[in-house]
Formats: sequence, C-alpha cells, structure tokens
Amino acid sequence: MRDFSSDHRWLSLNTATVRKQGDLVEIINACAKQGIPAIDPWRDQVASVGLDRAVRAVRDAGLELSGYCRGGMFTSDASRRSEVRDDNRRCVDEAKALGAPCIVLVVGGLPQYSRPGSEASKDIVRARGQVEEALADMLDYARQAKLPLAIEPLHPAYAADRACVNTTKQALDICDRLDPARSGMLGVALDVYHIWWDPELMSQIARAGKDRLLAFHVCDWLVPTKDILNDRGMMGDGVIDIKSVRAAVEAEGFEGYSEIEIFSHDWWGKPMEEVLRTCIARHKAAV
Amino acid sequence: MRDFSSDHRWLSLNTATVRKQGDLVEIINACAKQGIPAIDPWRDQVASVGLDRAVRAVRDAGLELSGYCRGGMFTSDASRRSEVRDDNRRCVDEAKALGAPCIVLVVGGLPQYSRPGSEASKDIVRARGQVEEALADMLDYARQAKLPLAIEPLHPAYAADRACVNTTKQALDICDRLDPARSGMLGVALDVYHIWWDPELMSQIARAGKDRLLAFHVCDWLVPTKDILNDRGMMGDGVIDIKSVRAAVEAEGFEGYSEIEIFSHDWWGKPMEEVLRTCIARHKAAV
Ligand SMILES: [Zn+2]
Ligand SMILES: [Zn+2]
Repeated sequence: MRDFSSDHRWLSLNTATVRKQGDLVEIINACAKQGIPAIDPWRDQVASVGLDRAVRAVRDAGLELSGYCRGGMFTSDASRRSEVRDDNRRCVDEAKALGAPCIVLVVGGLPQYSRPGSEASKDIVRARGQVEEALADMLDYARQAKLPLAIEPLHPAYAADRACVNTTKQALDICDRLDPARSGMLGVALDVYHIWWDPELMSQIARAGKDRLLAFHVCDWLVPTKDILNDRGMMGDGVIDIKSVRAAVEAEGFEGYSEIEIFSHDWWGKPMEEVLRTCIARHKAAV
Repeated sequence: MRDFSSDHRWLSLNTATVRKQGDLVEIINACAKQGIPAIDPWRDQVASVGLDRAVRAVRDAGLELSGYCRGGMFTSDASRRSEVRDDNRRCVDEAKALGAPCIVLVVGGLPQYSRPGSEASKDIVRARGQVEEALADMLDYARQAKLPLAIEPLHPAYAADRACVNTTKQALDICDRLDPARSGMLGVALDVYHIWWDPELMSQIARAGKDRLLAFHVCDWLVPTKDILNDRGMMGDGVIDIKSVRAAVEAEGFEGYSEIEIFSHDWWGKPMEEVLRTCIARHKAAV
C-alpha cells in the first residue's frame, strides 16, 4: 500500500467538491497553487467556461485528469433514446479533448428522474435492462475513441433517482457481460461513500482486479447524515474505514489517483483554499 | 396472491406509524374502531403504558399481533455485553406476554450507535461478527420460549447507526448458519422500504421460502427523501412496486399480515383517524 502520509502526489480533486466557490478555471488555478496534481471535472463546469478554455487551463496548469464526470443517465422512455445516445457520445468527445483516462458513469435510476419528462415507471428491473443496452452502445463508440468507461455503483439510497446499479457485484456482472475479454475499456469507479457498507465489498474488489479498477473516490459517511445528497463528510470525520478499502484496491494493483469527491453544503460554504488545504491534510492522515 | 382490494383483514398497523398522535392504548382503541385486526407495537410504547395494561388492552380489543418491535442492537463494547443479553431476554418475555408471533430484530450498527457509550469503532466486519454471536445467544433463550426471531435487513443507509445487516441475502446467510435445520425459530422480516432496490431481491425471497418469511412490512420510498430516517411514504406515494414484492412473498406461501410501518414527520402531523383511514384505503389500492 502506498504511503500517503508525507505528500499528496496521488491526490486528485473532483471539482464538484468546490463547485460553489468558483468556476472551473478558478478551481484549476487553485489546485495548481496547492500542488494538487490532478482533477476530475464535471461536464456542466466544463460547459460553463467552454471546452476549449477548459482544455487550455488544464494544460497550462500542468494537471492530469483522474476521470471525467459524468456519462450515463441511460434510462429514459422511447422518445428520449437518441438524446441519451447523442449526449453520451458528446461526453466521450469532451473527455478525449480533455485527456481524461476514463469517463465515470452514473447509469440513471427510474426514467422519470434520469431523463426528466420521460414517462414515469416503478420498474427497476426494466431500468437495469435499459442501462445495459444503452451502455453497450456507448461502449462501441468509446472503444473507437480508446476512452475507457467506469461504471460507478451508487449507494442504494440513490437507486430511484440517480443509479439503479447499486453494488460492486452488479457493476462487475455488467462488465463481464459487455466486455468478457477484459479489454480494459470497461470497469468500475469505486467510491467508498457508495460501497463501504457492502458485505461483499472485499470479495468483489478482488474479483474486479487491476484491469477493472479504473477510479477510486473518497469522502466519508457522517452520522447523522442530514441530507441524503449533499452531506458527505471530509475523510476522517465519519465512519468509513477508508484505509482498508484503499489497501484492498491497491492489493489488486491499482496505482491511480485517490480522488476526493465531497458534495456538502457545509464544505461548499467555506473558502476554496481552506477546503483544499483540509483535503490535503486529510489525504495524508485519513486516506 | 391474495386480493386486498375489498377489505383490510390482512392489514396490521405498526404502532410507530401514529406514535406521536397517542399512547399505545389510544392507538389500540383507534385500530379496533377502524376494524384493523392486528398491530405491531414498539417496546417503548408498551413500557410507557405498562406491560400489563398493554396486554389487557390488546386482549380487550380482540387484536392480534404481527410482531413485536424490536429486539437486537447486538453490537457493543465488552462492558455492555450483559446489558445486550439481558435487554433481549426481557424483550422475549414481553413478546410472550403480549402474544406476539415473532420479534423483529434490528441488529445494530457500529457499537457506539447501537449501545451508546460503547467505544467507537469503524470495523463493520467485527460488528457483524458480534451480531451473530449475540443473536445465537438470544436464539437459545427464544427457542425455550417458542418465540421466533425475525432479522430485519435494513437499508444500507442505516448500516452505521442501526443495522449492519443490510441485504436479504446477508440475513438469510445468518439464518442458515444459526438455524440450519430451518426450525421455524429464525427467519426474516422483509420491509419493502429496506429491500426494494436490491438486484437479488426476488432470488433471495425464493431462497427464504415460507418458513423463513416471518413478517412483511410496507410503506413507500419518496423521491426526494427529505429525511433519511423519518420521511417514509404512504404506499402509492413513492417508487416502490409493492405489489410485485408481495406477490413474490406470497408465491412462497407467506400468508401473514401486511404490516404498515411509516416513520414520517408528515404523517405524524395528521390526526390519527385520518392516518388510519388512509392506511386502509392504500392497503386496498396500492399493496
Ligand atoms: Zn464518486
Ligand atoms: Zn420494518
């Protein structure tokens, strides 16, 4: 297991962590100033400064990417199938322009939440079928661009509105069906917030292996959690045994960035520099 | 599948649903008045009117019980092991006095939340080991009293503070280890709120079979969920395909009550009679 205690060369910042404090160019500059070597930007943050400007800012700051957030939202009614496909192809193109090593996929929940306006449904089994179909289509396109796709299993609390893929096992089952050759083009993004509770966590990490482990996200689970979406904790402030999960991932050969992704009204209310300095300190102490 | 549309003979009320509107005796009387044939009372509600008075009120009203809430909270530090054991034995005695067909077990999460004052831990694997050990002890006592125990797997959102058993598979694995003979003394309480998202739900219900299916709880999952504990929905107001889950449970031979259990600041704010009338209407239409 890598020693994180003395520097932060393996820290990547998911830019949603400070999305309320500045635009993407400001975040990139703040990261560069703090010696943070990598980011994972969100599509809406890229769009609001413009793709070309984002590409230049990343390059000028000398940053790497640990991923691109996010593709997916595959579930919809029939009238929105082409919207889903085109949207995800554009995502691949943007990720390619930015030099991202993978796209993080949030697969979508029930169609009325995934693609608003879609006909309402309570059929989560059908939603899962749609995910697999639309993901297969995106994978064809991503293969040509040589852009790996990372399915992020989301906490079951988000099954209805964000992702109906809710366990590592479920994500890996999809990987095995759509990419049986383990080509490196399809894998998982494991976020401790979503998976820490899973009784099969360790066995599924071992099953994933290095070629399916495309990204590793950290934050913490607070007790009590005051907001189901936006009350994630800074690493060390909650109950997740983060080091054990990182040890398991690295035991499989994962040697990528440890990406900090905190959606939190509390942390969004603090100055960007304070948040980044805290991230660096906790990366050393609690990850 | 039983037809619920024309009467409510299979409706049981979990008394937490109207816990803010009256004490247990008042709830019992209101249920009797509405023709609700069964309840599942909570220990604190029984304690606050007194066990003897609760027993008399149930008997005088001619109600059945569908369970007794709740035993468990098995995780603790070493100094609280005897507290856990004694507390759960008293629970068995009370359930026996009340004529409950089973005790619903919420097994506890990390020890500091399960038994406050216990030394803090982030080791959920160890917590799960403790659950099994303390449950085995309780099962010995419950067998003598001929009182079946029903493990309720809780939604992963409660893994830290309420229950580290979070899937039906995990609960059934425990049942198989502690009661391999399927004696009828150990099984599961399945609550659609906790399990609806699970990709293995249907296969695990089939695995459970009639002798492990001891209780069936209903409410609904709202989008958005405003409070992680107390924003459960009335059946029909959320995204759960409740009828499909009930069909699966009944296909295994389950023929017990469909117990309504709604923790909700919204519903706690309405008059008891209105809540009960709504429960009856939704039991017919949405369960
Ligand atoms: Zn993530
Ligand atoms: Zn329940």
